[in-house]
Amino acid sequence: MGHSIASVLRHGGVRVVTCLEGRSDRTRVLAAEAGVEALPNIDEVVQQAEIILSVLVPAQAGSLAKLLADAIRRTGARPLVADCNAIAPATVGELAATLEAAGARFVDAGIIGSPPTLGARNTRIYASGEHASQLEVLNDHGLDVRVIGSNVGQASGLKMCYAALTKGLTALGTELHVAADVMGLSVPLREELAMSQPVIQAWLERLIPAMPPKAYRWVGEMEEIAATFESTGLTPRIMLGAADIYRLVEASSLGQETPELRTKGTSLIDVTSVLAQPLKDNSDQQRHVPKADATKR
Amino acid sequence: MGHSIASVLRHGGVRVVTCLEGRSDRTRVLAAEAGVEALPNIDEVVQQAEIILSVLVPAQAGSLAKLLADAIRRTGARPLVADCNAIAPATVGELAATLEAAGARFVDAGIIGSPPTLGARNTRIYASGEHASQLEVLNDHGLDVRVIGSNVGQASGLKMCYAALTKGLTALGTELHVAADVMGLSVPLREELAMSQPVIQAWLERLIPAMPPKAYRWVGEMEEIAATFESTGLTPRIMLGAADIYRLVEASSLGQETPELRTKGTSLIDVTSVLAQPLKDNSDQQRHVPKADATKR
Repeated sequence: MGHSIASVLRHGGVRVVTCLEGRSDRTRVLAAEAGVEALPNIDEVVQQAEIILSVLVPAQAGSLAKLLADAIRRTGARPLVADCNAIAPATVGELAATLEAAGARFVDAGIIGSPPTLGARNTRIYASGEHASQLEVLNDHGLDVRVIGSNVGQASGLKMCYAALTKGLTALGTELHVAADVMGLSVPLREELAMSQPVIQAWLERLIPAMPPKAYRWVGEMEEIAATFESTGLTPRIMLGAADIYRLVEASSLGQETPELRTKGTSLIDVTSVLAQPLKDNSDQQRHVPKADATKR
Repeated sequence: MGHSIASVLRHGGVRVVTCLEGRSDRTRVLAAEAGVEALPNIDEVVQQAEIILSVLVPAQAGSLAKLLADAIRRTGARPLVADCNAIAPATVGELAATLEAAGARFVDAGIIGSPPTLGARNTRIYASGEHASQLEVLNDHGLDVRVIGSNVGQASGLKMCYAALTKGLTALGTELHVAADVMGLSVPLREELAMSQPVIQAWLERLIPAMPPKAYRWVGEMEEIAATFESTGLTPRIMLGAADIYRLVEASSLGQETPELRTKGTSLIDVTSVLAQPLKDNSDQQRHVPKADATKR
């Protein structure tokens, strides 16, 4: 996501800088390809950048906010910092407090859609908070920033609800297709769904194969959504279960793949077979799994 | 569901009998309308019926199986008993053992689709087990019975996976739309979904308003699916969370409605507003719920 946004901004005439300390080789390659300038340290970043976009896995959003806050204090810079990560409104509130105490202007942002591509405004960056309108300047350089309110927590709340649908449904669909596979019921299930739920099944056939390389990131995101729902008084369990599913995918052989390198799991059946196999291997010891029909497999 | 199946069979030339001891007034009225003959006790039912279809809320499937087993023992009858309830394969296995020990021939059945209507074969009754093919005689009388295997647990396993999708997605969609409502984000969420997830959002707009009168039954069904998934080695939490959502609906004012009497909850917004209101009333005490923007509500 980060390098795609950087690439759009570069082509939109914006100088894009970053600091690659401690980042993976994959990130370094992607940054170089996107024409992003690597600065030697984070102090340089907060001094040279007018706008800082934080785009990371959810679990790292907090440590980056602290690094940025320290750098802002050391340098006296006062950048606009937009947290664009998939984290709960309450967590964003804590990051806002950390950064504002250091002197930054903070924007809550939530990215919805695929990574942006040149020319196609297929990604919305929702923004909220007192300074959100200052992020709209990026609309002149290829992005699609939409301000939805003046309070921190609104943009991330929207992102949480949206991701609950897309990633929650992907987890649910993965689980029920794996369960059917373990029980030897994949064929009748897929026939029934193709007939009576064709649009949902087509959606799953498209989205599930794209998921495995991202599963490791989605574990934390599902937990952030669970926390968001719980904070409104609703059950966290659906989304905690979705996190369980992505943990299962991450731990499987599918979890080793990257978006650029896919060898397995390129269809729904591929994905569910890989996930179901170890469960089937155990199922002889589990008296509750119905036996598949030898003649029907 | 029961009276719709009975009505189709009646019009298909079959004598349909039941025993209404302890059933609700609504069930009595529906049975009478469907032309079902009420017999004075369950012993008469097992003696006069060649095929017995058990169609109940999941929690009552076990007690009916015991009543039937006792009646079969008392009378020496040997009917074909098909458990058509939405229960886990392991639970069906227990019912099969109870009924077969009494002398019944048992069929595992799973109903998928809306209640059947005359002339339209819009409901599949999947069947499995040694005696499943004996249920196919009902295909000559307006039903659509499909045998998928020779083991008890296969038909109910298929039903569990299918219902996980339709009722799991309905629960997930309800939760995320209620969460958005509590956070004052319904309008931007619905605009975003209408644009980027139109087929899923249209499905939710159609299915969620139909759900409240059935929520009380779906609590137990979600728990049966959770047990099914857990028995295959998968997480039960997604479906336990779905049960939480239906428990919330059942406990709300929406839970008082019947399919014949709907006054509230006839659109997605209606349903989510009713469920969100008490959560919003509490949200002033909850520091983690982002404040809605006064100008945006």
